[in-house]
Amino acid sequence: MIERLDPDRATSVYRLAVRFCETDLMGVVHHANYLVYCEAARVDWLHKRGVSYQSWLQHGIHLPVVETRLRFKKAARFDELLDVTTTATELTRVTVRFAYRIRCADQLVCEAETMLACVGDDLKLKRLPAAVAEVFRSPEIVSV
Amino acid sequence: MIERLDPDRATSVYRLAVRFCETDLMGVVHHANYLVYCEAARVDWLHKRGVSYQSWLQHGIHLPVVETRLRFKKAARFDELLDVTTTATELTRVTVRFAYRIRCADQLVCEAETMLACVGDDLKLKRLPAAVAEVFRSPEIVSV
Amino acid sequence: MIERLDPDRATSVYRLAVRFCETDLMGVVHHANYLVYCEAARVDWLHKRGVSYQSWLQHGIHLPVVETRLRFKKAARFDELLDVTTTATELTRVTVRFAYRIRCADQLVCEAETMLACVGDDLKLKRLPAAVAEVFRSPEIVSV
Amino acid sequence: MIERLDPDRATSVYRLAVRFCETDLMGVVHHANYLVYCEAARVDWLHKRGVSYQSWLQHGIHLPVVETRLRFKKAARFDELLDVTTTATELTRVTVRFAYRIRCADQLVCEAETMLACVGDDLKLKRLPAAVAEVFRSPEIVSV
Repeated sequence: MIERLDPDRATSVYRLAVRFCETDLMGVVHHANYLVYCEAARVDWLHKRGVSYQSWLQHGIHLPVVETRLRFKKAARFDELLDVTTTATELTRVTVRFAYRIRCADQLVCEAETMLACVGDDLKLKRLPAAVAEVFRSPEIVSV
Repeated sequence: MIERLDPDRATSVYRLAVRFCETDLMGVVHHANYLVYCEAARVDWLHKRGVSYQSWLQHGIHLPVVETRLRFKKAARFDELLDVTTTATELTRVTVRFAYRIRCADQLVCEAETMLACVGDDLKLKRLPAAVAEVFRSPEIVSV
Repeated sequence: MIERLDPDRATSVYRLAVRFCETDLMGVVHHANYLVYCEAARVDWLHKRGVSYQSWLQHGIHLPVVETRLRFKKAARFDELLDVTTTATELTRVTVRFAYRIRCADQLVCEAETMLACVGDDLKLKRLPAAVAEVFRSPEIVSV
Repeated sequence: MIERLDPDRATSVYRLAVRFCETDLMGVVHHANYLVYCEAARVDWLHKRGVSYQSWLQHGIHLPVVETRLRFKKAARFDELLDVTTTATELTRVTVRFAYRIRCADQLVCEAETMLACVGDDLKLKRLPAAVAEVFRSPEIVSV
């Protein structure tokens, strides 16, 4: 059973600058780095909902990427600022999906999706703890 | 118009060993590296059909990845040998698709597809030169 | 002739968070990433003195690393915040040296030095343009 | 007490091809990748003396890099073949040093040294097991 998540609550934006080493001889960001950018944006998404990696470990779970899709629209270059808009889109008992739109100065650079599966330390599938599932339904924590 | 390529001719296998730095704190290969493995396998696929990067440059073209999909089936670990079976599957006037099956000792680790587009030095779409298109229809060169 | 630079003027601090993919199976940051951190800190150091990569290109120069030394003191882990204190230390007609101290919550993680050489688009040594040399003697630009 | 090792016994050569993603916008191998090349060569050096990563784990030890130095002599480019000549040079009760010469078609590309320290799973210094120390004194196993 798939639970569709509310995009208004489940969206955050993460900004990063392209590193020199992330470019290749074509002078643009090498495509594999976009998975790294999505990952960094996901970590930030969780931080903005009060989740640190330590809390993951306390639950004894990991959330590896089990499927991903990337569509490259425009090359990005060294030192450009990229905004990764990350949305948790779908939740099941053992998986969560995220969608990403990566923009550079309002131009779409890359669209991506990832499906993550909840696994234990033995890398076997494990039901998402209720507290973790609840995070994916949550908006950013507003700091006052 | 999409031309389906003959998988028997258009398949090659590339073997690589997982590097230490390609693992992450879960003790397994970090997922972004599979795009690197596909790329290395693609370069090998071309070598086996007599194509070096220099010949690309002489044509004034590049073949960046414009779309990719990865499905992870099983974790791979440091120092394991991976066999990447790479098949050119579809050709159009400006794109070529590759499919990959990455195995470790006969267990499927990852399935992937990439679509590459032919671009010039200005990164704009460009018709695949006939000689390059012909390479994608070719079997491995047999060295006698 | 080596010109020693004033460390008070020539020092900046750059903060970054360790990415998941930068760890290895030992659960700590893989050592090669510290060169990436130094590079990111150097780019930030230049930004804080008004230099963008575009200005480099206008001068027709690059500043590749020609020598580096790293001493690792303590492991850093995923999601930890690292402060890279970067100091331009010595200037010659064609090279500039930087020293780095990377700390995590006041504990020294890594000490590094890099020597960069000024080269043209042909990768041959080239005298540092006077305007570029002046940047290495400069303090951070204070934004009011 | 430092034990100098016999370079004739303690040297092996590892060949690798530069990957596309290892280049940067200057069109050459990004300098951080040379630490990756040294690491791959070190793993190969150990393989050639009968050591697999599994045996390390059985001893409950790791050998992280605690110090390194790199001098870059010449740029290497995509798809070039590099030969990494690796020599174990010095042994103490807790450390081992390696020296590397990386060549491309007989031209010296990079010289490097690394010092590795023996640590346990807790990352604390640990005396090198006698069987491991003996490996560093050993020549390649000749397969007949």
